[in-house]
Amino acid sequence: MLFLARMDVRFPESMDAQTKADYQAQEKSYSADLQRRGVLKGIWRVVGEYANYSIYDVDGHDELHAIFQGFPMFPYMKVQVTPLAQHPNATADEFFAPPST
Amino acid sequence: MLFLARMDVRFPESMDAQTKADYQAQEKSYSADLQRRGVLKGIWRVVGEYANYSIYDVDGHDELHAIFQGFPMFPYMKVQVTPLAQHPNATADEFFAPPST
Amino acid sequence: MLFLARMDVRFPESMDAQTKADYQAQEKSYSADLQRRGVLKGIWRVVGEYANYSIYDVDGHDELHAIFQGFPMFPYMKVQVTPLAQHPNATADEFFAPPST
Amino acid sequence: MLFLARMDVRFPESMDAQTKADYQAQEKSYSADLQRRGVLKGIWRVVGEYANYSIYDVDGHDELHAIFQGFPMFPYMKVQVTPLAQHPNATADEFFAPPST
Amino acid sequence: MLFLARMDVRFPESMDAQTKADYQAQEKSYSADLQRRGVLKGIWRVVGEYANYSIYDVDGHDELHAIFQGFPMFPYMKVQVTPLAQHPNATADEFFAPPST
Amino acid sequence: MLFLARMDVRFPESMDAQTKADYQAQEKSYSADLQRRGVLKGIWRVVGEYANYSIYDVDGHDELHAIFQGFPMFPYMKVQVTPLAQHPNATADEFFAPPST
Amino acid sequence: MLFLARMDVRFPESMDAQTKADYQAQEKSYSADLQRRGVLKGIWRVVGEYANYSIYDVDGHDELHAIFQGFPMFPYMKVQVTPLAQHPNATADEFFAPPST
Amino acid sequence: MLFLARMDVRFPESMDAQTKADYQAQEKSYSADLQRRGVLKGIWRVVGEYANYSIYDVDGHDELHAIFQGFPMFPYMKVQVTPLAQHPNATADEFFAPPST
Amino acid sequence: MLFLARMDVRFPESMDAQTKADYQAQEKSYSADLQRRGVLKGIWRVVGEYANYSIYDVDGHDELHAIFQGFPMFPYMKVQVTPLAQHPNATADEFFAPPST
Amino acid sequence: MLFLARMDVRFPESMDAQTKADYQAQEKSYSADLQRRGVLKGIWRVVGEYANYSIYDVDGHDELHAIFQGFPMFPYMKVQVTPLAQHPNATADEFFAPPST
Repeated sequence: MLFLARMDVRFPESMDAQTKADYQAQEKSYSADLQRRGVLKGIWRVVGEYANYSIYDVDGHDELHAIFQGFPMFPYMKVQVTPLAQHPNATADEFFAPPST
Repeated sequence: MLFLARMDVRFPESMDAQTKADYQAQEKSYSADLQRRGVLKGIWRVVGEYANYSIYDVDGHDELHAIFQGFPMFPYMKVQVTPLAQHPNATADEFFAPPST
Repeated sequence: MLFLARMDVRFPESMDAQTKADYQAQEKSYSADLQRRGVLKGIWRVVGEYANYSIYDVDGHDELHAIFQGFPMFPYMKVQVTPLAQHPNATADEFFAPPST
Repeated sequence: MLFLARMDVRFPESMDAQTKADYQAQEKSYSADLQRRGVLKGIWRVVGEYANYSIYDVDGHDELHAIFQGFPMFPYMKVQVTPLAQHPNATADEFFAPPST
Repeated sequence: MLFLARMDVRFPESMDAQTKADYQAQEKSYSADLQRRGVLKGIWRVVGEYANYSIYDVDGHDELHAIFQGFPMFPYMKVQVTPLAQHPNATADEFFAPPST
Repeated sequence: MLFLARMDVRFPESMDAQTKADYQAQEKSYSADLQRRGVLKGIWRVVGEYANYSIYDVDGHDELHAIFQGFPMFPYMKVQVTPLAQHPNATADEFFAPPST
Repeated sequence: MLFLARMDVRFPESMDAQTKADYQAQEKSYSADLQRRGVLKGIWRVVGEYANYSIYDVDGHDELHAIFQGFPMFPYMKVQVTPLAQHPNATADEFFAPPST
Repeated sequence: MLFLARMDVRFPESMDAQTKADYQAQEKSYSADLQRRGVLKGIWRVVGEYANYSIYDVDGHDELHAIFQGFPMFPYMKVQVTPLAQHPNATADEFFAPPST
Repeated sequence: MLFLARMDVRFPESMDAQTKADYQAQEKSYSADLQRRGVLKGIWRVVGEYANYSIYDVDGHDELHAIFQGFPMFPYMKVQVTPLAQHPNATADEFFAPPST
Repeated sequence: MLFLARMDVRFPESMDAQTKADYQAQEKSYSADLQRRGVLKGIWRVVGEYANYSIYDVDGHDELHAIFQGFPMFPYMKVQVTPLAQHPNATADEFFAPPST
């Protein structure tokens, strides 16, 4: 079951550069694991913004919320979720490549 | 170069069912051709709405606008376009499978 | 898996009273069936508006979109969907009574 | 009389983790009591957000406002309230199960 | 129990002047009855707009929705409802005069 | 001449509880005086929010602005003002009771 | 007592050019009369839009609403009204020239 | 060439009362000079808000931006600018009185 | 003096294809003349929308409004205008090439 | 490939004047380099705001995002990007002068 998410990050003014860098490193590792497991099917930077669009494939809402809440930077993210269904014009059941291993 | 598009369709009240069905058939064929050519990487229905999210891979803005304008239902669509860049946390250069042939 | 939906109905100006009444009768029957099957867990009128809030329990997005699209009045409805997860403060796994039979 | 509420929580940047945890524990207990008394009929997490949708059954506005104001985290919550009426298509007078005891 | 309502009226373009005048006469009579019964505590024109703010005193949501739906011009009105509670700074339990008879 | 006002209060994070309580006490006294003088015809709490709707009867804009600016908590309030006129369907020239004395 | 108004005009699609021209001629005459009487202190076109900003000097809300409602094109106008007070930095009590006669 | 401006002031929480008063005194003097020179044709307080509407008469955009940037409180102001043209219904070329001297 | 304009075109449903084509041909010729005269410095299509961004260089607001109003398709356009000033980081007084002749 | 960008700058309250001036000097130099390289085709101040509209000519989204992220003041900017295509009414392929050298 696919979900489109848009995530906007906003760090507090008082956060120092090292803390930010640490968060970003943890985030990268967390994100890589989701990609490896085939949960995070794709992630792209919104040009000009500290934001991404990403697509998740999960079995349910509790799993998806747990994934979001597990992001190291979750307290600094605004997440908007859109449920996606099969489109009648789609020529394939699956648009994504299998996770690279 | 990737673009996320959200398309919302709204037919005029006066359009009859057959005309709508004809438009939808033409649209399906046009969309299938874009998928076959690898231009339209993925398309999904927004649950509960006559709308889709889709991702395009094109070489430039003129090409992309021509593609949108070529949609049979373009006069009845509201299109919002977001340019996407490579995300630093992406573990793959390409998330999409090659077009099915 | 639960979803909250808000549906706003807007009939075209040109629709006559009998057609509206027919739509509403079909809608009522369709809605009753969804309630009987335990798919539509609850539905409430928004005070002062031709709109409802309702909660759906389905297995996936394709099923949910098919349900919305099946509403006789779907072409005249604006539907907004919010995915719901288990709340950590909930004292019960299930808030709804079983469907009345 | 039913009300749908959406609550969004936003803690100040300066609040430390222990204070947050204390607030959340008090909130959980306060919420459980409302559920036990049949005032809070259901509560669900909005996927991806520090927010909930919940449904209240109260006798009047003063009671409802007192309940909101009694939430330990009320100063950090944005609450939006929608009055709900019986829907003509509802097949039951009551959608909710009795409070678990 | 008090509710503030804002009502915006918008007649369809095709409605002729006589039909409008008839609606307005029926509306006036319906509104007068609500005032006489003490249900509609006050009603004011928003300067420059075909809109009003009004305050209702009812026992419940079903009653209130029935009142709105009973307005002859209901199909042409957009109604926004805000539940009102006793304010801690109020020096009176009741601000309104009894209905004129 | 009547004006509807909606006031939303937002204290800065750094303000301590005693300062808030002092402000609220001053506010209550200031508000009571306006009610006694028949300037503030009614005031109600918006359910679930630190906000009120209130109705003012003044002779002009300078007087009204001076009244708002005189509120002890004015620096922490967002005020939106709507001018109200006599409604053609009103059955009374005056909806409010005389100030309680 | 001054009010700033923004008025946006939108004629229905079906209105023919002669009807529009007639409306505009009546509007011009009505507006000139308001200027002559010193009620309409100034009126300006919003560049690029079928809209104006204008400033009214009236004794009360009923008078102002009657003025707006008297505009021949009132049914086709959206009017937004902002009450203006004396500004503490103003060096003059009156910024406008007397009406030209 | 006329421009309508709406300016909203918002001081930071940490600014003390004396600093605010100093800013306001400088602002008053700066504003008076603009009025004397006939650049600022009028300025009015928005009732209930720390905001004004004002009308500027300048020869170009660089001059206008320099004027705004010269306001002592510019860093704390949000400015929205609307270009105004001659209105076809205006009975005078100039609505404003000459600056008082 | 430069202005950025965004123009969105929306033809009425009832307009036939030939009328649209005629409008577009007239528009093209009108636009070309503005470009030749150096008034319209640049014009670009917003990708995916029947809209443009364009930059105008004019001596005043009356001239600019007359230009907009002269567009054959003006009744079907929504125009938003933003006044532009010299930017302190600009390395050139003029970014545009002279009009092609 | 052209992109229109609107950038709004907002420095944190706690930043001192020297730090701001340093940022602005670095920004100016960075911007000048982009102009010299023909990447930044034009930049203009939005009158009354700490904001600009600017037009970029780049080969792709990764390059464009890298350019934005390279701005010294990027963490304090909100950037909105609109992809631009050739307009059918354009009389020139290129509106901009070559970069001044």
